[in-house]
Amino acid sequence: MPLQNIKVIAFDADDTLWVNETFFRKAEEDFCALLEGYMPKEEANKLLFDMEIGNLPLYGYGIKPFTLSLIEAAIVVSKGTMPIELVQKLIDIGKKMLEAPVELIDGIEITLKELSKKYRLVMATKGDLLDQERKLIKSGLEKYFHHIEIVSDKTEKHYKKLVKHLDIQENEFLMVGNSLKSDILPVLNIGAHAFHIPFHTTWAHEMIYEEINHPNFKSFTKASDLLQIL
Amino acid sequence: MPLQNIKVIAFDADDTLWVNETFFRKAEEDFCALLEGYMPKEEANKLLFDMEIGNLPLYGYGIKPFTLSLIEAAIVVSKGTMPIELVQKLIDIGKKMLEAPVELIDGIEITLKELSKKYRLVMATKGDLLDQERKLIKSGLEKYFHHIEIVSDKTEKHYKKLVKHLDIQENEFLMVGNSLKSDILPVLNIGAHAFHIPFHTTWAHEMIYEEINHPNFKSFTKASDLLQIL
Repeated sequence: MPLQNIKVIAFDADDTLWVNETFFRKAEEDFCALLEGYMPKEEANKLLFDMEIGNLPLYGYGIKPFTLSLIEAAIVVSKGTMPIELVQKLIDIGKKMLEAPVELIDGIEITLKELSKKYRLVMATKGDLLDQERKLIKSGLEKYFHHIEIVSDKTEKHYKKLVKHLDIQENEFLMVGNSLKSDILPVLNIGAHAFHIPFHTTWAHEMIYEEINHPNFKSFTKASDLLQIL
Repeated sequence: MPLQNIKVIAFDADDTLWVNETFFRKAEEDFCALLEGYMPKEEANKLLFDMEIGNLPLYGYGIKPFTLSLIEAAIVVSKGTMPIELVQKLIDIGKKMLEAPVELIDGIEITLKELSKKYRLVMATKGDLLDQERKLIKSGLEKYFHHIEIVSDKTEKHYKKLVKHLDIQENEFLMVGNSLKSDILPVLNIGAHAFHIPFHTTWAHEMIYEEINHPNFKSFTKASDLLQIL
């Protein structure tokens, strides 16, 4: 059974260890409500999404890029007519997100506790280092991880680099995460293992619609299910 | 001679490998010029600095936090009366900084080339991962580095973690950088080596006024001077 080879298990952070996407959805709702006088909510939300995707190559992932996109999108939505107070409100939405309490995913702590006795665990995220470190400390999960791996994106190239950096072989690496696009497909493509634990909300940019049928792939409904096979 | 122990040399990135602070100074000047109608330049600059320092614990270092602080400071400077177009101009200042070409520090390439034959070189920065990776690729210096180490701050605690992560002893580690506060003092304090190569401009927050007299410390006027002793 090839799972016996596994030496390092990497966990995605946002929506795998703790709730994240829910905060973005809430912020998008607040954005649309604040700008309802200028544009119907659904249209404003679409414009914000396009702004985020347009800024992604330059800004990368995280709350600070999101905040800048909120402001830039609001300028477009209001055709440059919104009051300045609204800009401060959007900045404050971002600050509130950065300061939000950490809400653990069900069963994740016991899962990490048990797995950390048998494997080297790392946290692998494409978020913002300062922000992810802060969440990790607030979460109380820090003690289970050997270290944090921050990658600017989660592509095959990045995972190859990560595996090399961990000084192991591809088939000794297991990634656990909620995003098929970021945590699963590129990992399977380099010959490593990938387990999927979906979160109820996924950002449209991370959505893929594909059946996965791969010997190194498994899907679970909750974190603690991992303990049945690892 | 204790330098013979050195196994890994870490280079700071901004203002050690390439020009950086100059772009921030230019952006601050642009900010003050844009807001001159509301507040004398020097006063606006002071307010911007205070805003950046106030936001530092929440936002961390880099161009995106700086851009958010530009906007928030402009709201205060103009007492909420600036036109929305100004907000877009400030966002564009940040985007221009992210896209700016990389200007290498004199003599750094030949220095890295020679040192990479004898030591493992890493880049150690508290900047933004995506932004620093982009600069490293643009710079053409990537081939000389084993990997990038991104830290959320450069304190003794962070350097201890870094040395542990590199799997070496403190006295086998040498840090080279332009900031006494970030690259030199915390490194000396953990028993490692630190070489200072000042850049002509230093952010006020990084300034320290102190004579350093430590057996593991040396100061150089230019990068290529390193080759005389390493």
